[in-house]
Amino acid sequence: MAENPFNVGIIGLGTVGLGVIDLLNKNKKLIAHRVGREIRISGICAKNKNKRRDRDLSEFRWVGDPLSFSNDKGTDAIVEVIGGDGEPAKSIIEKSLLNNKHVVTANKALIAHHGHYLALLAEEQKVSLNFEAAVAGGIPILKALREGLCGNNISRIYGVINGTCNYILTQMENEKQDYSEVFKKAQELGFVEKDPNLDVGGIDTAHKISILASLAFGSRINFDNVLIKGIESISLLDIKNANSMGYKIKLLGLATRSNAGISQEVEPCLVPKESLFGKLDGGMNMVLVEGNFVGQTNYIGPGAGAGPTASSIVSDLIDIARGNTCFTFGQKASELNISHHIAEELSTSFYLRFLLTDRPGTLAQLAGILGKYDISINRMRQLHHEGKNAPVLIVTHPTKKKFLKSAIVELKQLDICKNEPVYIKIEDL
Amino acid sequence: MAENPFNVGIIGLGTVGLGVIDLLNKNKKLIAHRVGREIRISGICAKNKNKRRDRDLSEFRWVGDPLSFSNDKGTDAIVEVIGGDGEPAKSIIEKSLLNNKHVVTANKALIAHHGHYLALLAEEQKVSLNFEAAVAGGIPILKALREGLCGNNISRIYGVINGTCNYILTQMENEKQDYSEVFKKAQELGFVEKDPNLDVGGIDTAHKISILASLAFGSRINFDNVLIKGIESISLLDIKNANSMGYKIKLLGLATRSNAGISQEVEPCLVPKESLFGKLDGGMNMVLVEGNFVGQTNYIGPGAGAGPTASSIVSDLIDIARGNTCFTFGQKASELNISHHIAEELSTSFYLRFLLTDRPGTLAQLAGILGKYDISINRMRQLHHEGKNAPVLIVTHPTKKKFLKSAIVELKQLDICKNEPVYIKIEDL
Repeated sequence: MAENPFNVGIIGLGTVGLGVIDLLNKNKKLIAHRVGREIRISGICAKNKNKRRDRDLSEFRWVGDPLSFSNDKGTDAIVEVIGGDGEPAKSIIEKSLLNNKHVVTANKALIAHHGHYLALLAEEQKVSLNFEAAVAGGIPILKALREGLCGNNISRIYGVINGTCNYILTQMENEKQDYSEVFKKAQELGFVEKDPNLDVGGIDTAHKISILASLAFGSRINFDNVLIKGIESISLLDIKNANSMGYKIKLLGLATRSNAGISQEVEPCLVPKESLFGKLDGGMNMVLVEGNFVGQTNYIGPGAGAGPTASSIVSDLIDIARGNTCFTFGQKASELNISHHIAEELSTSFYLRFLLTDRPGTLAQLAGILGKYDISINRMRQLHHEGKNAPVLIVTHPTKKKFLKSAIVELKQLDICKNEPVYIKIEDL
Repeated sequence: MAENPFNVGIIGLGTVGLGVIDLLNKNKKLIAHRVGREIRISGICAKNKNKRRDRDLSEFRWVGDPLSFSNDKGTDAIVEVIGGDGEPAKSIIEKSLLNNKHVVTANKALIAHHGHYLALLAEEQKVSLNFEAAVAGGIPILKALREGLCGNNISRIYGVINGTCNYILTQMENEKQDYSEVFKKAQELGFVEKDPNLDVGGIDTAHKISILASLAFGSRINFDNVLIKGIESISLLDIKNANSMGYKIKLLGLATRSNAGISQEVEPCLVPKESLFGKLDGGMNMVLVEGNFVGQTNYIGPGAGAGPTASSIVSDLIDIARGNTCFTFGQKASELNISHHIAEELSTSFYLRFLLTDRPGTLAQLAGILGKYDISINRMRQLHHEGKNAPVLIVTHPTKKKFLKSAIVELKQLDICKNEPVYIKIEDL
């Protein structure tokens, strides 16, 4: 064991912070062996010192003020696991970087909003800012993009990267329960963030897909340009219909790059039942990456929890302790492209559900409007009448969402459609 | 673009070597951006200069003698993609390291046999020896073990890491064809190595699992202690039987660590149809890694081919060009453990197939022998008679293979069993 230890300050003692402490304790020897030096906890810090934490933390130095940690002589790196896209996390990271401390964080919201600024700062100060744990929990997907697949021109990244949404959709399907019922259960089980909109509204997925897109495409992180649609409007009926056509509904983060520009979306999609995404049940995460030489690779693992998150945080620390540093987003922050972002320009098939009045000619009217917007029909099914109305399911050939939206606006001006028309993207992967 | 270029010599101009040249050409700008310096080909070398290679290589300096490359002033790293576990690959790598050149290779056979010696040499010379492409083609699995999951105590790694075997087993099942028929077809398609034993005999998988085990467990690479069973004896009948019980047969590389020691095996196994391994068809590769904090993560992608292999080789080069180096097997080679290797000590369930003579009492005799060796029966099925004999299928409760083997030896001394008893491991994953 050659050198002096690598000293780490932990700020935030929730599930994740305690997970990091547990990991560094339990695997101490093994890590020292692999790194060539010990990773030592130089101090710990949280809002409330006396909260019950179910383990003895008395051996660690308690630091009362998180900001004073950022200037601590005996600390090489700060682990920020408080969370939140603003204060105090932002100032803690900022001051730590300014004081030449490396920073490791799991804070996707903060990186999505302030990642570019913080990356510039880290670069200027010649320290690392790592956040493997921010996306897909224990799966080392950021390292794969930044290093393992780094020779490739990446054309797309798709991910199921919010376990809560995947749990809810899986439960709806398995238990034949409505969204609201399953949502309530998930909340009771503690699976949903305090602000549920982060999960079911798709914002968490959006934070993560903006990070993945920046790393993959070498573009400046741009959370504001993610088009976000959550899962709140997904009905059991649509899940059943999708199933009968060989699909499941999953909330995907979708980032693609083409000559036209970069597209970032969060959207519930129909995916083939038999695909890897279709098979991904419960709280697991999966990321698909497509590069021009490697082809498609897929990464599957636990997307949350103390252990997996701690695993990623410690791997970031190990990189730094080994002296293996990399620019935050895989290349000089000042050289990241400001990309042209396109919206609703990519063509895919869509699943449509209409409830049409049962009058002669309504189907012709519907077909006429779709045709007018160049939307051609691949499959159509009329189901059993619901009272006086006829449910109609359509799978389109690939079309642009903006055309579809226009068609629906026009359709709603007639009185032939009795439901709010449902349209869900199909990703055949 | 700050620094001088990073100069790479390519030795071997088969599919893989040409793939590396194509990648470095096509993604030149993108790579220079990500690395901060250009990766330049300083020269190329192969046995036959005039072989048809379908692209213009005249811009590159031709080096006639591969060994002189190892002392080339204008070369920082050598890419060895000749293959083979002996000469000239070994001397090329050895001399390159001795001359302080970094080395990147895709040569699993060589690493499996001489990896420890070469790692010691690389360390002494303070250069890198990287071989991401040696295992699972385009999947950055070695990086995941060495870095991304590095904080974990890894307990097991399972892999389908030979595309040819997976192709053959998949085809047998889909086309209802015998092994010999599908093997011939695979050979005609050019999917099988010149020495087929490398593929179907399980040796290639053994090379790879020994590399994975060393990286995961921090143990000195030990190819000789891999227990190897190939797929030649897998019959269509067993594939069908497995299917009817909810399983598929896959050739797995299995590395596990327990208190008793390290176990390395290559073995056809029954895996649940609905598992990720069960769903892995054709030439794809998959690796499952289990660590004490991260839990289970899975990596899926193309296991061979010019593009995926080149992707891994170039990512190795990029690591070196960025100055990110790591010990060859993730820690100092001189500190790698010489592990205790255990064989046939782990308990699993087994699928058994016997063809019993149709006489009263034979089943009792069979059951008696199994019982004597403490092998208890979970499920049993007697199928339609084949002539005068009765096929019997058994799924056992977990038992050790050595007990099973002893029972079979004893069984064969009686004359109640008309086939060579079949036993295949069940991995419920």
